Formats: sequence, structure tokens, C-alpha cells
Amino acid sequence: MNETIKKDTSGVGLVEKQFFTFAGPPHEMKLDSGARLGPITIAYETYGRLNAEKTNAVLVCHALSGDAHAAGYHREDDPRPGWWDFMIGPGRGIDTNRYFVICSNILGSCMGSTGPCTYRPDGSKPYGLSFPFVTIGDMVKAQKALMDHLGIQKLVSVIGGSIGGMQVLEWCIQFPEMTASAIPIATTTRHSALSIAFNETARQSIMADPNWNSGDYYGGAKPDAGLAVARMIGHITYLSDESLRQKFGRRLQNREDFSFQFDADFQVENYLRYQGKKFVDRFDANSFLYITKAADYFDLNRKYGDGSLVRAFAFAKARFLVISFTSDWLYPTFQSRDITQALKKNGLDVSFCEIKADCGHDAFLLPLNRQSDLIKGFLNGVFTETQT
Amino acid sequence: MNETIKKDTSGVGLVEKQFFTFAGPPHEMKLDSGARLGPITIAYETYGRLNAEKTNAVLVCHALSGDAHAAGYHREDDPRPGWWDFMIGPGRGIDTNRYFVICSNILGSCMGSTGPCTYRPDGSKPYGLSFPFVTIGDMVKAQKALMDHLGIQKLVSVIGGSIGGMQVLEWCIQFPEMTASAIPIATTTRHSALSIAFNETARQSIMADPNWNSGDYYGGAKPDAGLAVARMIGHITYLSDESLRQKFGRRLQNREDFSFQFDADFQVENYLRYQGKKFVDRFDANSFLYITKAADYFDLNRKYGDGSLVRAFAFAKARFLVISFTSDWLYPTFQSRDITQALKKNGLDVSFCEIKADCGHDAFLLPLNRQSDLIKGFLNGVFTETQT
Repeated sequence: MNETIKKDTSGVGLVEKQFFTFAGPPHEMKLDSGARLGPITIAYETYGRLNAEKTNAVLVCHALSGDAHAAGYHREDDPRPGWWDFMIGPGRGIDTNRYFVICSNILGSCMGSTGPCTYRPDGSKPYGLSFPFVTIGDMVKAQKALMDHLGIQKLVSVIGGSIGGMQVLEWCIQFPEMTASAIPIATTTRHSALSIAFNETARQSIMADPNWNSGDYYGGAKPDAGLAVARMIGHITYLSDESLRQKFGRRLQNREDFSFQFDADFQVENYLRYQGKKFVDRFDANSFLYITKAADYFDLNRKYGDGSLVRAFAFAKARFLVISFTSDWLYPTFQSRDITQALKKNGLDVSFCEIKADCGHDAFLLPLNRQSDLIKGFLNGVFTETQT
Repeated sequence: MNETIKKDTSGVGLVEKQFFTFAGPPHEMKLDSGARLGPITIAYETYGRLNAEKTNAVLVCHALSGDAHAAGYHREDDPRPGWWDFMIGPGRGIDTNRYFVICSNILGSCMGSTGPCTYRPDGSKPYGLSFPFVTIGDMVKAQKALMDHLGIQKLVSVIGGSIGGMQVLEWCIQFPEMTASAIPIATTTRHSALSIAFNETARQSIMADPNWNSGDYYGGAKPDAGLAVARMIGHITYLSDESLRQKFGRRLQNREDFSFQFDADFQVENYLRYQGKKFVDRFDANSFLYITKAADYFDLNRKYGDGSLVRAFAFAKARFLVISFTSDWLYPTFQSRDITQALKKNGLDVSFCEIKADCGHDAFLLPLNRQSDLIKGFLNGVFTETQT
């Protein structure tokens, strides 16, 4: 299995998940809901080297089901690298020869950071639904604590797609002095009714599973059936009509004719069932509930702008590269245009690029040269400027 | 409560559901799957009067969750009329002063026609999953038997939207001599991978409900939770991003601020939960499985054209009015254009109209004057021609 790494000596190589714990009592973090949470552990990884002046850090924010493992391999026999490996590495879009890249698991997730599947401070049992609600803003606050811990006072850039892009926008508003630049990708400033509708349907699917048991299922049977359907719903929204047509069309799965049974006759059915099943092995149903709700609550206009997106960005200082994809119908391009316009009305330096891609919302996770080149060029300009 | 009827004296008034039973042993109907089914009961309603020559009949085909009750009221205190009441009645789009209108419940449904919730011929228990698979073609064959029973040899028109539109297209191919004209609305000739994906996810939601019990739940607890989520998934696809924005946006449900709970904070969440709950009171989960699978199997190119839609329509003779809606993303306009082109290449008389509407796929169920006027004008032309 050394083959894997040998094949890919151009990347960041072996990496390790690290942990940072803070907000221990009585210094619990105050959340947007008013509740307090602590201690908080944040799982994170870093790639490249922090320079002596600590001025070369780039923060990468992940989406709903992502984690801190953005690049490289955990073990020599890992079959696959981190989720954005094609983007992060020596000479890649986010060049680790130059930048110190940090990716941390979001608060509320189940990939090493504190979330509903974490044990309560009293050690009695996992939080379950007693875990307080966290917002995208809270996730960013926890990331800020990690930056403080690492001694980083200013980030060359904060970069992320989808819910990661929401975090990017929060960073620019909450901590304008710390963000030299920002790259929000395939994202929005407020979840549309359509996005909320899909998320709510997915949540109802989990909550309809008797094994969910009001979130108290740790140690027993998990709500796998409900979570699998939730993932199938989500997965459809990450693709596009066109990509589904190209990838599957009406092709049948290992058969010449219809089964006239409730089997997965079509490849697309088989694919979705597989995605659902695979997901339940690695993700926690309660984390799915918490993070989708945080995304639904996300509304910069409401939180910072009193209904105006222009006002919401009034204190932002970053240089921006806004990226959208033509076939993304979850956060369509017009939403990225809205971001761009609001930033420009604040006199900020903004580049906007809509990338032609058939593959829907998930395009940002796919190795598109156009995206990597854009990010590389943009970071280069920002870095040159900030180091002088 | 007489108010209701008083308010609406312009419609068809009180109507009655009727039943027709055929295909009793040993004359069971041979289905597309090769299985045999019988006896078969078809529930239907009629509006207007059949003329002496029996040349003024119009068949209306309903969609997934519809039924035979297309117009009028069953009782004086009915709060609501049939599902297409604004379209069918004296002077309306389908004018009952002139036409004899028939609407029958599709085979496999649960609204009076034979389906999985019907008792087996031996009276032992409802069919459940022992009910054979039915296709859109089988549904049409059962409708044809009803026409024979009513003594109707030629239809002025066959009209329907969505899955009803699929039946319309099957009619024109299976029984070209019987269809003087056809109005397929918001429909397709083959389910796309996206449509299959949504249907399969909805089916998985039902089948994940422990109460579903492999379809054997009659007399016990029903898979309401799974069916409600399935309906929510379907319902989203019937609307549009724009209509959801207009109808709900991010408005909160009876509250000023977020609950920071898993309540229905947003109106759109509340609306979808309500739609899900309402649906389980009137629809059978197994029927949902069978009819969505029939829609997924629907593929005229494959069944009749050996991969060519032009060939599929080679024997059609009807005059066509093809209607689509701008915001329908389930069966987008390009699919109606494909139908139109294939018909034209067969030298058929085809009118095509894309109606501007923000309300998505379900637009055909809404009282749009443009749709009613188009249908009225088209039928008028056909009727005048066929009677001379």
C-alpha cells in the first residue's frame, strides 16, 4: 500500500490531527444563543511551515460533512488523501511552500471537535440534544481561539466553500483586522427558503427514525436509516440535473431490463443508496441536525446589517475573491453576485468569477484547474502586498 | 355550510364517484411486467353529458397523488371542490356544456381503483407488495377498458399534467385511432436521473420506516413518518426557488427570533411539515411506491422507439397542444420542446406553449387564465373539426 504515497510525493505527505482545548470553566464560550459552552476541543491540522513573523497563515474552512483533514495522508496505507488535497500542497493552489495552512473541524461536528456526540463535562454521557445550538458565528469564534493559540494575528486569507464560505464571510465581519483577504466559494449570505426546505426535510427524516430517540442513541442502535435518507436528500442538491444526466442518465444497474421490484434498477438509485450507507459509517446524526440548523440560521443581513447586506459588510476590510459555479442551484450565482455588489458598495477590492462547470454545488470539491489557478493568483497578489 | 355550493353555482355542482370492474378471472389484464391482474376496479367521475353519437368525450388524467374527483362537490358541505374544478365546468377551459368529461383514478392508486391497499381476490388480506408492478401503459390500458365500457370509440382529447401527461402520451401511441387530440402538460417522455433520484430518496424514506414492514402494515400502525418525509421531498420539487422565496422567504413562524431548538422556526418548515402530515391522512404509502416507480420506468424512447423519440411517436395521429411552465425544474421546458420536435418530425399538427409562471411544476394545478384559455381554444378547434 506504500504505492499510494509513492504515487503522490508531490503533496504534503503524512500529516497528523492535532487538538486544542480551551474555554474550560469558568471561562466557557458565550454562544450566539446566549448559552455557554466549555471546555471546547477543536481538532485541526496544519500543512507547510509558519514563518518566524507568523505572517504566512491561511485558514481553510470546511463544509457540512467535512473535517480538519484537508490534505495529505494520516497513514502510509491511507487509500485517499484529505478532502482538498488537490488544492493544498507544494506548488498547488494554496502553496504550502509559501503558506502555513490550517484547517480545523467545526464546532458541533463529530470529527474530533466538541459536538453533540462529545461527552458532557461531567463525564456522565454524550451531550445529545443537551448540546447547545451553535451558529456559523460560534464556529468562527472557536477558530479565532485556535488562531490566538497558534499566535497568528493576521491571516493571509480565509478560504472555504458552501458552509465553509459562510464561515469565511463571518470572519471578515467579526475579525476584520485579522483577515487580509477572503475567498468565499459557492456560498450565500443567507439560506434561501429552498435550502431551508431541503435541510428541514433531511432533519425530519432523521427525527422520524425511532432509533434517533430524541438524540439519545449513543451506545445503542443509531438512526442510520434516517441519516442515510437525509444524506441522499443533501447529495441530490450538491449535484445538478446536467451532471446526473452525464454521470448516470437512465442507465440500469447490472441488468438488461427493469426488475419490476423495488430494487435499485437505475445506476443513480444505486449510487444514492451507496452514498447514504457510506455516510452513516462516518457521520453523526445529531451533528447533521446541528450543522444544518446553523446553516439555516445563517443570515448576515439580519445579524449584522439590520436587513441590509451592504451594512452587514460595513466593517469588512479584506480583499475578496468571490467564486461561484454555473450549475450550482443550491447557492446559485446570483447570490455570489449579491455578495460582490454589497462588498463593492463598501468600497472593497473584490474580484468575482463564475466558473463554468456542469457538476453543481460540489464543483468546489473537484479538481478544476480554473479554480486552483484563480486562488493561486489571488493569494500571490495578496501575499506580496502584505509582506511589504 | 351550503355557502360553499351557493358561492360556486357556476361549476358542475354535486357529483358522484362511480366504479367499473373488469378483468375478472380468467380474463385478467396482462401487465407490461408480464404479470396478470384481475379483477380490476376503476373509480371514475363524469361531468357534462355524453351526446347521442358519443363523440364529445374528453378524458382527464390525474397526477401522482390525485384522484377521480376532478370537479364539483361530493356533498353539499364539502369545503373544497375537485382538484381541477377551475378548469372543468360550464364555460370553463374544458366546457361541460359541450364536452362529456371523464376522470378516473389510476391503477395502483388508493383512491378507489385497484391498488396495493385493495384486498386480494381471495379476500385474505390487502395486496401490499404482492400487488404486481403497474406501468403508465397499464394505467392507460385500464382507462381504455373504461372507455369501452362507456361505449366511447373516440376521444375529443386526452388531457393531463405531470404523470397525467405521461398517460396522455401513452394514449396517443397505444390507441392512436381513439385520440383526436392530446394535451400533455408539464410532462416528459422519460424520467431524468434527477427525477429518479428524488423519487428513490422518497421511497427509501418510506421503506426506512419500521412501520412499513415490507408493505404489510394494513390494519396496524402505518409508515406515516416515512410517508410524510417522502411527501415533503416531492413537494419541494413541485415548487420553485422563486415561488418559495415569494411565498415564505426567511419569514419566521409565529416568533420574533430563532428558537435555538429543532422547532419549525421558519414558515417554510412549518408548511412542509403540515403538507407531510396532511398527506398521510389521505394517501397510502405503498401506492406512493408503486406510482413513483411507474413514473421512473416511464420511457417512451425505450418502450416504443428503440431509443428514438421520433420513432416512438411514429403511429400517433392526434393533434397536440404541448404546455410547459417556465419555472418547472422537475420536467423543464426543454423536455416539452423535445416532445414537440419529435411530434413535428412525424408530420403531426403540434402547438407548443411555454407559460410564464413562477410557481414551478405545480403551475398546472393553479388557476392560470392563460392555461385555461389555451385549452379552451384548442379544444374548440378540434371539436369543430371532428364533428364535421
